[in-house]
Amino acid sequence: MFQTTITIDTYGEGDIINLTPAVEDLVRKSDVYTGLVTIFTVGSTAAVTTIEYEPGVLADLRRSLSVCAPDDAAYAHDRAWGDGNGRSHVKAALVGPSLSVPIVGGALACGTWQQIVLLELDVRETRRRSVIITIMSAQAC
Amino acid sequence: MFQTTITIDTYGEGDIINLTPAVEDLVRKSDVYTGLVTIFTVGSTAAVTTIEYEPGVLADLRRSLSVCAPDDAAYAHDRAWGDGNGRSHVKAALVGPSLSVPIVGGALACGTWQQIVLLELDVRETRRRSVIITIMSAQAC
Amino acid sequence: MFQTTITIDTYGEGDIINLTPAVEDLVRKSDVYTGLVTIFTVGSTAAVTTIEYEPGVLADLRRSLSVCAPDDAAYAHDRAWGDGNGRSHVKAALVGPSLSVPIVGGALACGTWQQIVLLELDVRETRRRSVIITIMSAQAC
Repeated sequence: MFQTTITIDTYGEGDIINLTPAVEDLVRKSDVYTGLVTIFTVGSTAAVTTIEYEPGVLADLRRSLSVCAPDDAAYAHDRAWGDGNGRSHVKAALVGPSLSVPIVGGALACGTWQQIVLLELDVRETRRRSVIITIMSAQAC
Repeated sequence: MFQTTITIDTYGEGDIINLTPAVEDLVRKSDVYTGLVTIFTVGSTAAVTTIEYEPGVLADLRRSLSVCAPDDAAYAHDRAWGDGNGRSHVKAALVGPSLSVPIVGGALACGTWQQIVLLELDVRETRRRSVIITIMSAQAC
Repeated sequence: MFQTTITIDTYGEGDIINLTPAVEDLVRKSDVYTGLVTIFTVGSTAAVTTIEYEPGVLADLRRSLSVCAPDDAAYAHDRAWGDGNGRSHVKAALVGPSLSVPIVGGALACGTWQQIVLLELDVRETRRRSVIITIMSAQAC
């Protein structure tokens, strides 16, 4: 099993999920010792990045994203579709849906304070997200 | 054929090209069933991300990028080189030139509204862009 | 040798290091003709992207990051931890820690003015950074 989809329930705009334990577990199960794991979130109103999983800095990130795409701006997307998530699309495109992390010695090579996170940016109360984990071995290539 | 370069003509600053059909076509031709496709734009004034390919949200993204790198700021790059594209470089570095999308069941794993796009950020009237598509099979590794 | 860690000393917030020569050298040593190199910075207050390595545009990028995460904002992270690098975490999460560049004909496929850079975003005077370079061959897959 080198590629799998994990399902994450999110609870509203600004929810940030720590994916590190789930990814770590899959890396261990894959038995890949040297390689790369790519995390990809399906959908256009969520994003993936790394950050220290600490409530303060997560709040700081939310505010920074709102500088780039303010809540009270007039979104052409919202005028056309009325779903109120124009800012969600913009933030997701800026941060991006994919991230690649090396596997070194059978483990994720993240720093001590560096967690892999899913950013829920949409405005719905709850969403079920699919995140695809692809693990590739550098040695087998 | 696991790596190929596609050529895209762009028409000025803010042009956004939907790369999904071209990438999808290459994935199909590669016969890879489970894997990863990496999209990379050559050059320092363009970027790659995913977004819903809808005119309203594309306009919203352009405005958001102009918050981060306003048209009327005084760019040191422009003072030094006079080519007026300081903001283009900055936006391209923020969004980034590369993106990796899983291949699941022989198809791109993008969401229904999630398209792969090339952002033309330079200020020239037209540009010919090279985008390199690299397809890797998870199973063969 | 398909995966290796390079060590980079950085000198304070806003230091930007051109990684291209080191990555190019590793690509050459890997003997990979067609493939992909992934650059990943370990740690939550640094980032990786591409940009023209020209002092003016590097200054422009620093200013743009400060629009998104201003020096004088009140960071919840700083209130909680007092280390004054709330903005560093935010900028790092926005730009992201990873980047993938194709290898074409045994060389990096970057554009003429497109350099691979490490952004030091932390506020300490000096830091020793680990950057992991993973090289994968498309043909072997």
